[in-house]
Amino acid sequence: MLGTFVYSNPTKLYFGEDSLKFLNDELPKYGKKVMLIYGGGSIKKIGLYDEIIKILKENDKEIIEDGGVMPNPTVEKLYEGCRIAKENNVDLILAVGGGSVCDYAKAVSASAYCEEDPWDKYFIRMEEVDNKIIPVGCVLTMVGTGSEMNGGSVITNTATKQKIGCGFDEKVFPKFSILNPIYTFSVPRYQMVAGFFDIMSHILEQYFSGDDDNTSDYIMEGLLRSLIHSSRIAVKNPKDYEARSNIMWTSTWALNTLVEKGKSEDWMVHMIGQAIGGYTDATHGMTLSAVSMPYYRYIMPYGLHKFKRYAINVWNVNPDGKTDEQIAKEGLNRMEEYMKEIGLVMNIKDLGVTEDMLEGIADNTFILTGGYKVLTREEIIEILKASM
Amino acid sequence: MLGTFVYSNPTKLYFGEDSLKFLNDELPKYGKKVMLIYGGGSIKKIGLYDEIIKILKENDKEIIEDGGVMPNPTVEKLYEGCRIAKENNVDLILAVGGGSVCDYAKAVSASAYCEEDPWDKYFIRMEEVDNKIIPVGCVLTMVGTGSEMNGGSVITNTATKQKIGCGFDEKVFPKFSILNPIYTFSVPRYQMVAGFFDIMSHILEQYFSGDDDNTSDYIMEGLLRSLIHSSRIAVKNPKDYEARSNIMWTSTWALNTLVEKGKSEDWMVHMIGQAIGGYTDATHGMTLSAVSMPYYRYIMPYGLHKFKRYAINVWNVNPDGKTDEQIAKEGLNRMEEYMKEIGLVMNIKDLGVTEDMLEGIADNTFILTGGYKVLTREEIIEILKASM
Repeated sequence: MLGTFVYSNPTKLYFGEDSLKFLNDELPKYGKKVMLIYGGGSIKKIGLYDEIIKILKENDKEIIEDGGVMPNPTVEKLYEGCRIAKENNVDLILAVGGGSVCDYAKAVSASAYCEEDPWDKYFIRMEEVDNKIIPVGCVLTMVGTGSEMNGGSVITNTATKQKIGCGFDEKVFPKFSILNPIYTFSVPRYQMVAGFFDIMSHILEQYFSGDDDNTSDYIMEGLLRSLIHSSRIAVKNPKDYEARSNIMWTSTWALNTLVEKGKSEDWMVHMIGQAIGGYTDATHGMTLSAVSMPYYRYIMPYGLHKFKRYAINVWNVNPDGKTDEQIAKEGLNRMEEYMKEIGLVMNIKDLGVTEDMLEGIADNTFILTGGYKVLTREEIIEILKASM
Repeated sequence: MLGTFVYSNPTKLYFGEDSLKFLNDELPKYGKKVMLIYGGGSIKKIGLYDEIIKILKENDKEIIEDGGVMPNPTVEKLYEGCRIAKENNVDLILAVGGGSVCDYAKAVSASAYCEEDPWDKYFIRMEEVDNKIIPVGCVLTMVGTGSEMNGGSVITNTATKQKIGCGFDEKVFPKFSILNPIYTFSVPRYQMVAGFFDIMSHILEQYFSGDDDNTSDYIMEGLLRSLIHSSRIAVKNPKDYEARSNIMWTSTWALNTLVEKGKSEDWMVHMIGQAIGGYTDATHGMTLSAVSMPYYRYIMPYGLHKFKRYAINVWNVNPDGKTDEQIAKEGLNRMEEYMKEIGLVMNIKDLGVTEDMLEGIADNTFILTGGYKVLTREEIIEILKASM
């Protein structure tokens, strides 16, 4: 655990089949006006919307609705949410949905009282929040982003084709999140497996960095093994409670700042994936899966020691009589088999990417420096071509 | 992750070589009167006492000293600490030391304003704290107990020969803890390895429970592997920063309520160990190491599936061509070899336990029901005899 760091995560988690009841413990802590944020209406289909309205009314809350949050929330939607929050002087934002809904809720929380354009201040310039913050609570219905216990928020600017993730500090973290694995049972298979890979990618982005050998790497190996084990069960039986609950918990801990401690972190798969998202509106997890194998095969020689360790500790590759490179390659092959097995999108063509977009996607890819190899624009294009 | 649970851990951690500087960020949050709690004076030897006094004075604090906290803090000491805290109307308790000092600080924090005998209310009856709580901050100099990020507090009543650990709720958790691995360099070897085994035991007490297969088990396997790896380095070179920092971080996460989620938990090694502690004043971690092998060999048949998994995933036992029992036994044998290798006490005779104490120790052992086998008094005596 090299370097000096601070760990602080104030989000309170309520987990389990009957965790919605804890909303009754939380609501009295906040004022009367609750802004209820949700997505396309799936929460109405599963009856959760009605349950939550009932609890809010029982707690004597005034409800201000803001539905229709899209899978990739836009900056225009953010402006609208800020207007609603400010005009109604809301006391609590209750986000009910998946990562996009939580992301959007946190963006509104930090931006509603921002005196300049929040897109410029918080997403382009990534400044610290210095205005009034509206507290956020989440009821999670889809897993993957980890947004329920961190400060992350991804917003898309369709005009500039930019999809940018910002990391708000702990003041903007949800005050509480309610995690009921049963809510995730009804997520369509495509979104479900995309979420599984989003979790895996979060872990790998942190794991494949640094020369040091630290406790975070060991925790991540545990999380990866748990995820691989449970996701194989979940794709066969999406209503397996134990599998879905393990995945939900793994997802939260994969990206709540714990496993990044002591790590330099890579995040290039997310940078490329987000650039693709800016061009295609593809499902986030699938943009990651579609570029991951070409990316990891490309950087493998630069972090061979870690890819070898990954193969042995995560994919149970038997190292006997093999070179480091053979071991590492076998690990990546097993990862690829697993990805195909659970039904992930394995190339960007299937996401609607065309040859003429590649240069633009490369131009819109932020290049980060924490991984084993700092990519050039040309190398990104090469990886994108290998992902077609 | 079966069952419904709540996770909330408000302790802020400052980690690293220069983490003491963050004391300057924390002190202004509290009033003028700081009660400085420490142990036998080792913090003076390493210069930490002077550094902290300097920072407290620079922050214009009035210092009320309470030194001399013993390795097993007594109830008489607790009464004295409560008197000092209350008489001086202290605003912050700053605990500088190892787990005993942190434990004692939390006991004072919760007990100073308790209107009845805190030993009866919080340790015997284990009631929830409903009186005023004095905030606690820690500067950790020894690892093992995890006390820096939880509500645990172990106090010994010498008159009744009772050593009882209570788990205060999150209101009593330290507000912040400063973790500098370098402070642990000067801990004597005996205490150092006792601390290593305390960590291991915390993990095993949670791991060896439940029929379920959940993410917590995978995280614990990661923590165990990291601990085994780094402790082998640390016993050869106690000043290996990376090893000591990994162990410090593992220790915190082994017992800060994370890995207990979804688990029924055993804790019988601690119950027996604490009963021995009530009779001998032996170092806590050594009471655990001395009984662990007889205990785990005794319960192995009742949790064979988990002992098999432990052998393979933690101790790299090759399962090919072996029965489950052979695999499990080989895992425990490797654990025993490791324990001897790092220099742990392997029998209770070496801790001063004599034959005539065994019945009394068994009588003072709380019998818990979360493990693979609920022990009888006679079985505890049998395990104690096997530990002689």
